[in-house]
Amino acid sequence: MKVMIDLCVVPMGVGVSVSSYVAACQQEIEAAGLSHLMHAYGTNIEGEWDEVFAVVKRCHEVVHELGAPRVTTSMRIGTRTDRDQTMADKVQSVTEKLTTS
Amino acid sequence: MKVMIDLCVVPMGVGVSVSSYVAACQQEIEAAGLSHLMHAYGTNIEGEWDEVFAVVKRCHEVVHELGAPRVTTSMRIGTRTDRDQTMADKVQSVTEKLTTS
Amino acid sequence: MKVMIDLCVVPMGVGVSVSSYVAACQQEIEAAGLSHLMHAYGTNIEGEWDEVFAVVKRCHEVVHELGAPRVTTSMRIGTRTDRDQTMADKVQSVTEKLTTS
Amino acid sequence: MKVMIDLCVVPMGVGVSVSSYVAACQQEIEAAGLSHLMHAYGTNIEGEWDEVFAVVKRCHEVVHELGAPRVTTSMRIGTRTDRDQTMADKVQSVTEKLTTS
Repeated sequence: MKVMIDLCVVPMGVGVSVSSYVAACQQEIEAAGLSHLMHAYGTNIEGEWDEVFAVVKRCHEVVHELGAPRVTTSMRIGTRTDRDQTMADKVQSVTEKLTTS
Repeated sequence: MKVMIDLCVVPMGVGVSVSSYVAACQQEIEAAGLSHLMHAYGTNIEGEWDEVFAVVKRCHEVVHELGAPRVTTSMRIGTRTDRDQTMADKVQSVTEKLTTS
Repeated sequence: MKVMIDLCVVPMGVGVSVSSYVAACQQEIEAAGLSHLMHAYGTNIEGEWDEVFAVVKRCHEVVHELGAPRVTTSMRIGTRTDRDQTMADKVQSVTEKLTTS
Repeated sequence: MKVMIDLCVVPMGVGVSVSSYVAACQQEIEAAGLSHLMHAYGTNIEGEWDEVFAVVKRCHEVVHELGAPRVTTSMRIGTRTDRDQTMADKVQSVTEKLTTS
């Protein structure tokens, strides 16, 4: 089962500057070889369900390993059985509607 | 690694009445023997990471099996290494602050 | 327009114990006289759109006033035009499906 | 109070193809003149609290006006009092950590 997620990992108990923790997370995503795109409030990731969720778990583990005693994540998870749709397809589908309207 | 999640599974392409899909999801959670609590906009679940996420995957699978071509879920994920904290502990901790203030 | 939300406010930069901030938020919700229910990973609130969102803003303001330099919230927002549905209705609708299956 | 949000509006009861509803939402965001960036699973928006939340309300209204009887949205909301930080700043902060590590 293919899945597309949007992941926002928030380290708690480490102050307000969390970019080094987010960067460690990004390295896990890249190391997993998954298609992904970071934006200002999370990261889109797509791939096979088990591979994507292995990375989500690694993100929590690595943020704890770096010293954060608590991690709270918010996440969207999308699956569909009617057809394949990549992250690029989703954005293009909306953009087409915008330019032709 | 223990985890507490809040899970809200939304079937798409099946009309506005989705309670039968949500009920199927609840049955998967119960079948897994995980501690859980349903509220009006999701379900709290706690347990070992791999067991909890196996149930999340089963929820997507069962909702597709029941005929929903598309599923979009929103989820919060909490882990902490400083101490054990159950769902009941979290609610009690806030309630105590409210009653003593 | 009636709305039902699920709100999870996370103070950042104040350590791992955040229950006093969450309690301050609960007091704002109660002061607003809105129907609400706290669970282990958020709070359901229902009411008129503008009243509900005034409380969400007050929550961010009060958590900052208490000393949190950064706040990150995750929230679900539900509206429907086909019929009225309370928080209790939603839970009952799923529970009925569970007990009759 | 400045705010940055990540907004994902999901129309229910209108089938699986929702890009025209999402496009209508994008037009509301653009009409409001707010800084924004669409990704594959939502849209980042930043601006003054009241202006940003007026657009969130307009998104629900317009999706209902287009015929969706039910709308469920998931949203992240970030505020900070310690310093100004734009969407571009957040991405750059993580990217710098990645390239120097």
